[in-house]
Amino acid sequence: MISIPSGFNFVGTHCGIKKSKKDLSLFYSAHPCITSAVFTRNLVKASPVIVSKKHLSKSGRNIQAVIVNSGCANACTGRQGLKDAFEMCSLTGECLGLKPEQVVIGSTGVIGRYLPMAKVRSGIRKLCNDLKENTDRTSSVFDAVDAIMTTDRVKKISTRTLNIGGKKVKILSCIKGSGMVHPDMATLLGFIFTDINITKNLLDTALKNAVEQSLNCISVDGDTSTNDSVFVLANGLAGNECISSKNSKEFKKFSYTLTDLCEELARMVVSDGEGATKLVTVVVKSARTRFEAKKVAQTIATSPLVKTAIFGSDPNFGRVMAAAGRSGVNINPERIDVYFDNLCVYSKGCPINFCTKEAKKVLSKKKLSIIVNLNQGKTAVKYYTCDLSYDYIRINAEYCT
Amino acid sequence: MISIPSGFNFVGTHCGIKKSKKDLSLFYSAHPCITSAVFTRNLVKASPVIVSKKHLSKSGRNIQAVIVNSGCANACTGRQGLKDAFEMCSLTGECLGLKPEQVVIGSTGVIGRYLPMAKVRSGIRKLCNDLKENTDRTSSVFDAVDAIMTTDRVKKISTRTLNIGGKKVKILSCIKGSGMVHPDMATLLGFIFTDINITKNLLDTALKNAVEQSLNCISVDGDTSTNDSVFVLANGLAGNECISSKNSKEFKKFSYTLTDLCEELARMVVSDGEGATKLVTVVVKSARTRFEAKKVAQTIATSPLVKTAIFGSDPNFGRVMAAAGRSGVNINPERIDVYFDNLCVYSKGCPINFCTKEAKKVLSKKKLSIIVNLNQGKTAVKYYTCDLSYDYIRINAEYCT
Repeated sequence: MISIPSGFNFVGTHCGIKKSKKDLSLFYSAHPCITSAVFTRNLVKASPVIVSKKHLSKSGRNIQAVIVNSGCANACTGRQGLKDAFEMCSLTGECLGLKPEQVVIGSTGVIGRYLPMAKVRSGIRKLCNDLKENTDRTSSVFDAVDAIMTTDRVKKISTRTLNIGGKKVKILSCIKGSGMVHPDMATLLGFIFTDINITKNLLDTALKNAVEQSLNCISVDGDTSTNDSVFVLANGLAGNECISSKNSKEFKKFSYTLTDLCEELARMVVSDGEGATKLVTVVVKSARTRFEAKKVAQTIATSPLVKTAIFGSDPNFGRVMAAAGRSGVNINPERIDVYFDNLCVYSKGCPINFCTKEAKKVLSKKKLSIIVNLNQGKTAVKYYTCDLSYDYIRINAEYCT
Repeated sequence: MISIPSGFNFVGTHCGIKKSKKDLSLFYSAHPCITSAVFTRNLVKASPVIVSKKHLSKSGRNIQAVIVNSGCANACTGRQGLKDAFEMCSLTGECLGLKPEQVVIGSTGVIGRYLPMAKVRSGIRKLCNDLKENTDRTSSVFDAVDAIMTTDRVKKISTRTLNIGGKKVKILSCIKGSGMVHPDMATLLGFIFTDINITKNLLDTALKNAVEQSLNCISVDGDTSTNDSVFVLANGLAGNECISSKNSKEFKKFSYTLTDLCEELARMVVSDGEGATKLVTVVVKSARTRFEAKKVAQTIATSPLVKTAIFGSDPNFGRVMAAAGRSGVNINPERIDVYFDNLCVYSKGCPINFCTKEAKKVLSKKKLSIIVNLNQGKTAVKYYTCDLSYDYIRINAEYCT
């Protein structure tokens, strides 16, 4: 049983961008929401990213609806693409009695194709109507989440409930990402809805902290797709006293919960990675700085040779070391230890005579860790990745809507 | 019929590092050779790289033999690995009447394992003996080249003959590389032998120029494996007047030929890429600088999504654009044109309504180009890559000697 934050209503439908699967979602709040968002840093930005940024700015980050389609990313589509993204917002607004800028937008799917706007228009009108008649807010959540998926195999929803000053605050989030942790991953779209009462600045701070430690540790900073977007909408209906101090225990509680939630979403995305059979946590320990730790972790986590070795259950610490060595961080190979889970396989620049049977056992697990101790400092970082399998090739060589 | 430069003699054998395939080669010159070399920039350097560097320096770059094994990279093997690499050189020297530092070494294969030195010792003694008794220098070249291969499917040999001041100068080269253009590629070892008479400095210059435009355009600078090495040995036996001026037409001729040869080797490596079914030339045009052009080209050439699209014969310019956009170069998406061979698919930030049938035809070719015109400047760069197929996964998930 899913617990929906007060005032929110979500619906999803099939409008015809995809052949038969659901492809259009509407996320709506009865009251305006202060909204924070983070977007792709790719210089090639999809139209929905450009339009959402404009609308956040124009509305003073007061948003009431999010319209999302899958099956077409509306990226690399020039002026027509911008026009279409804007029209999706304005039509949604029109049907719901909102200004265009109170609506933000996300799109995911094939790049470089135009949206079939006639179908999209009918879909939006239908969704706005469905919304008004929606009597089962719980089951319609699943329709909405269904309609944002592309190559995802599972719906990714996560919720939290917390007590803030005696009031029950709810958070509901969903994410889509076909999940490759690689910089080249397909689009990641995340939506977080909450009824908490909080200032805009603190909502920003909480989201940035949360994303830095979670979704940015599965995708490389600045190396995101054309459409990546994460939104958090807060309508304040929980009725708690507005959180306005960064040092308050209420803010810390919320910020901790949001980070924890985003970490769960990050792991969901990686576990459902395109072709993934294993969830791998790369832990880099005893680095001089967080930046260096993350760079080493990310190079290991994105190395095709490491990822294929994991797929093949091969305890190939050499590939781990080779990745660390080319990360650009000034490591000292003679100090480094490498573990798979608790099994030490490499210590201070030399291979350990480990038990092959035990190693195979660890490497065959569905969830495992690669731990690299640099022995240079005091900082540690976690980075989530998955293995690289035949199915990744199949999915990406044959991917069409 | 292969034409061997004067004074060189190459032999290869099976010594037992691999189960049954050849795994040990000796490249020998009857006269000392001035030698230039380029090595991996990975901070995790394999023992043979460290030992070769030392020997080049100690001998004043006067080398007479190269000992190479496949099946074990002797990387991440600490002091024992260094001791083994040194012993391979000193034993080779001992058997041939050379100082240890007149011998350089290359190793390729699995990382993190020790060499079976008893087998290697017998193998070296046998090779040195074979060398003395070798009456068929031509067919033994193929044994030597065979013994440096790992996952390579074909022997990669290229030769050139040129006239320098009335003298016939010969170049023979061989290379091994399982060929992924990706930064994580398996080891690349290249050996170039020539009887030209040239100064050390100019041999350096020629090799650096050649590699920068060829082998460094298939692998990312600084992102090489633990063992990557390219050597050029010149024994001067062609009898030409020593080339000592950078502006001489003789030097230009040699330098041009060496670059052309290295480009051929680079294409061979990529065509034989692990699991490769297609050779792709990424051309980035009208960039502001060579550095920027190369960075964009490299990001496209190493993108798994681009490479899987090519495997699937999908004219997915969106993935090309997304890669360009995250390359870190300040591109202007609205100015960019993308072509597959001569077929324009994207122009000035908008998709072109191209003929799908024609696109499929281009994308199905064994050799094709992705051309990206940035329309920002005057510099162009070529970068070679291959597609990413099921076989890449098979080879790397199951790779063991």
